[in-house]
Amino acid sequence: MTAIARRWDGLADRNPLVQFIDACLRGPAQVVFQNNPLTGVVILIAVAWGAFDSGQPRIFGGGVLGLVVGTATALALQVDRASWRKGLFGFSPFLTGIAVPTFLDQRPLMWLYLVLGAAGTTVVTLALNAVFKRWGLTAFTFPFVLTTWVLLLAAYQFDRFTVLTQLTPKFPGEGTLTGGHFNWDLVPIFLRGISQVFLINSWVSGLLIIIALLINSRWSAVFAIVGAVGATLLALWFGADGTSLDKGLFGFNAVLTAIAVGAVLHRPGLLVTGYTLFGIALTLFIQMAMASVLTPLGIPVLTGPFNVATWLLLLPDRHFAPVPNHERVKETVVSSVRRSV
Amino acid sequence: MTAIARRWDGLADRNPLVQFIDACLRGPAQVVFQNNPLTGVVILIAVAWGAFDSGQPRIFGGGVLGLVVGTATALALQVDRASWRKGLFGFSPFLTGIAVPTFLDQRPLMWLYLVLGAAGTTVVTLALNAVFKRWGLTAFTFPFVLTTWVLLLAAYQFDRFTVLTQLTPKFPGEGTLTGGHFNWDLVPIFLRGISQVFLINSWVSGLLIIIALLINSRWSAVFAIVGAVGATLLALWFGADGTSLDKGLFGFNAVLTAIAVGAVLHRPGLLVTGYTLFGIALTLFIQMAMASVLTPLGIPVLTGPFNVATWLLLLPDRHFAPVPNHERVKETVVSSVRRSV
Amino acid sequence: MTAIARRWDGLADRNPLVQFIDACLRGPAQVVFQNNPLTGVVILIAVAWGAFDSGQPRIFGGGVLGLVVGTATALALQVDRASWRKGLFGFSPFLTGIAVPTFLDQRPLMWLYLVLGAAGTTVVTLALNAVFKRWGLTAFTFPFVLTTWVLLLAAYQFDRFTVLTQLTPKFPGEGTLTGGHFNWDLVPIFLRGISQVFLINSWVSGLLIIIALLINSRWSAVFAIVGAVGATLLALWFGADGTSLDKGLFGFNAVLTAIAVGAVLHRPGLLVTGYTLFGIALTLFIQMAMASVLTPLGIPVLTGPFNVATWLLLLPDRHFAPVPNHERVKETVVSSVRRSV
Repeated sequence: MTAIARRWDGLADRNPLVQFIDACLRGPAQVVFQNNPLTGVVILIAVAWGAFDSGQPRIFGGGVLGLVVGTATALALQVDRASWRKGLFGFSPFLTGIAVPTFLDQRPLMWLYLVLGAAGTTVVTLALNAVFKRWGLTAFTFPFVLTTWVLLLAAYQFDRFTVLTQLTPKFPGEGTLTGGHFNWDLVPIFLRGISQVFLINSWVSGLLIIIALLINSRWSAVFAIVGAVGATLLALWFGADGTSLDKGLFGFNAVLTAIAVGAVLHRPGLLVTGYTLFGIALTLFIQMAMASVLTPLGIPVLTGPFNVATWLLLLPDRHFAPVPNHERVKETVVSSVRRSV
Repeated sequence: MTAIARRWDGLADRNPLVQFIDACLRGPAQVVFQNNPLTGVVILIAVAWGAFDSGQPRIFGGGVLGLVVGTATALALQVDRASWRKGLFGFSPFLTGIAVPTFLDQRPLMWLYLVLGAAGTTVVTLALNAVFKRWGLTAFTFPFVLTTWVLLLAAYQFDRFTVLTQLTPKFPGEGTLTGGHFNWDLVPIFLRGISQVFLINSWVSGLLIIIALLINSRWSAVFAIVGAVGATLLALWFGADGTSLDKGLFGFNAVLTAIAVGAVLHRPGLLVTGYTLFGIALTLFIQMAMASVLTPLGIPVLTGPFNVATWLLLLPDRHFAPVPNHERVKETVVSSVRRSV
Repeated sequence: MTAIARRWDGLADRNPLVQFIDACLRGPAQVVFQNNPLTGVVILIAVAWGAFDSGQPRIFGGGVLGLVVGTATALALQVDRASWRKGLFGFSPFLTGIAVPTFLDQRPLMWLYLVLGAAGTTVVTLALNAVFKRWGLTAFTFPFVLTTWVLLLAAYQFDRFTVLTQLTPKFPGEGTLTGGHFNWDLVPIFLRGISQVFLINSWVSGLLIIIALLINSRWSAVFAIVGAVGATLLALWFGADGTSLDKGLFGFNAVLTAIAVGAVLHRPGLLVTGYTLFGIALTLFIQMAMASVLTPLGIPVLTGPFNVATWLLLLPDRHFAPVPNHERVKETVVSSVRRSV
């Protein structure tokens, strides 16, 4: 395994095509803050499983197309090469590529829209990172969120698109909440909470994503599970909508916050774990509030709540022995193989 | 009086418990930009009066709990000690603590929500101040506004909460405005405009708050009254909703803008007074616009309009002989006693 | 012609009144990024034609009043004199002055509202430029957009105003789109797309504005046409609302993006033209999305989409041989006469 990985890295250094493929494969992994092409491969399998299992293979095709277009656009715009090779220009267009065929109906024009959206996601990534670096932050997945919101909201104004979000625009508080009822069959819900990071509703995919995390970082896998479990139980306790709960929709934003705050951007420890648990609650409340704000527009929150919560948690100057992004990957499974981000 | 104050200051320097109480007491005073524990005590009495008078003592309890939790959270996060001692981490959680029992129904879970909200307000204070310091600004009461909006909007999504804002989500322009009709009994309305800074609807509380201001700064008291009178008369002239007008709801944002721009952040004078009068109109128009934006969501503007208007008024580089915050407190009543902010 | 222009410049240097008039005349020209009083005069004629032609001369009066009030307010606030002389404090209040009588009903109070709004636009210009300069950007026409949104949204809350936007607040996706149907009579639509930059629905005005651009910069005229044609055809293809299409409402934002990105802020060339074409599509999609966001509030997008799209396009560090604003005016018709911005 180590030998294969070393050989792949060597190939990527020399062969431009392999280098491009390597950068693309790191994209899906960077959604969950990992810089590892093998993690990316397993995540692609997880997304493919979810897409084919739900009878919508075009969702997988859209993700791959978005990933390639976004990564290629970044190359054409001559972005910072080191960041590009880490997959940092692939992860948001990958998600945009999954979202467009998930939320718009199938037709040729949708694919053009997807390609323009993926290229746009790369431009927005460059723009928002230029904004956020003033505070030592990055835009995370917000370029995907913003671009997809724009694409969905614009689709309302075009006769040739139909928005399939299953969210009819209405006033917040209208309609009846089914309420959370305790359910001992929670494990699949937790796993779906993890797969929903990639807009996939499948516990098998969730399991595959945990394996993908384990390949690169044990702590990331642990905190992904903590995030899914914590946010889902909190939503259950407060009486959130049962149908959404069952799909894992209250887990995925907290999964990302927990990995970022608990495992990747700080050295894991007791104080950091306490702050992360608070961050999970913060993410859930921000998600619920954002859902209310978007109710009259009929669009989903996507990973917006994770972005907002994590910015809020990172902005204060704290004393948690912060470490540069991914420095601690040294302690993880394949640390001898992969250079960290 | 001076002797007692000096002894209290000495005690606060030595005794950690007295220091904590002192920091807490300065919180309510910092809502109106005063750094004086006695001002804080009188404001607490004003809020208690309003809460008990309206038969809702839990509003006062919520305010005190929010104040203590927010101040303690800041201590745990090891914030800048000098700012902490001035009450700058108490004023927003104090308002969050008042808002939650005002707008959500009474139940045990509401109190947990309030505690999480107060702690969250402190994190948001740290985050937003880190953002705003790039332009030499502070976040004022916006952490309270943002956190309370999130708590109210999230409550729509939870079966176990009922939102009591008396604002049904609807489209702006729907429903009939009762219109402003001139009323010679305006003085209580002006006073309620001042008490609404603390979400209290009571002219007695308004009077107590003016006394609290007078203890620390005559000019602040004068501009508080100018703000309430100016904005209320302007709203009356333009034909704003009579019911809201009567409750003082068109006064409180302008009260804060007028104190900040007219008395605290600039040296009072003719040009500054002209700019402040313009700022009062700006605050009212922004408040009305923000009310329209929030109409479909059914949540109140809180002190959002004051924050936005004051940022806009402070951002331009002007030539009004700006002075550091509170420097001019030297000219006020107890200036020999209290160190300024 | 050159001699007259040189004499006018000399007069403006010596005579304060002529200098004020000169600064005012450059305001309308700066909406389309030109620093030339003659361009401003022709644009004023175009706006006058549109206003009188539609039987609403008060729209022209409002524009002139806004221009004078905004420019005078900037003088009173002692802004940077060089920027002031270039008309950079006149263009947003000019647009605010056109928008208020377009969207509010005729009555004396409307004129006071317009004057306060024009003065407010200048304060907001100063504030937003202070914010945006951190990223090397300016606020473009966003002060006009923000101020006009506030004035229209606030008008809903005042009994004495009636909002005439012809946009009833509703949910996005409600109502039927008429759909785009191909129409060989597209030239007047393209021209109206240019006149709508100034909220005017007239192909004659559009033609006059092209002439105004030609006076100062051939490339600006070319890219204005490219923007109008590109965005309109794209909207037609995707099936946007036919009524709005016919009024040129899908053209004007792209016109501004195309002039800014293609002709003024970069040296025109092949790569820049490609980026500009992408920018035109981006502007249209952002416009459609913004229209959906504003549907429940019943207010128009104004030139908001151009601002957002152009910020996004300028924020990334690119390698298009960027030139300082208007440096390339040297190549234009009157370059020997006018100093560039």
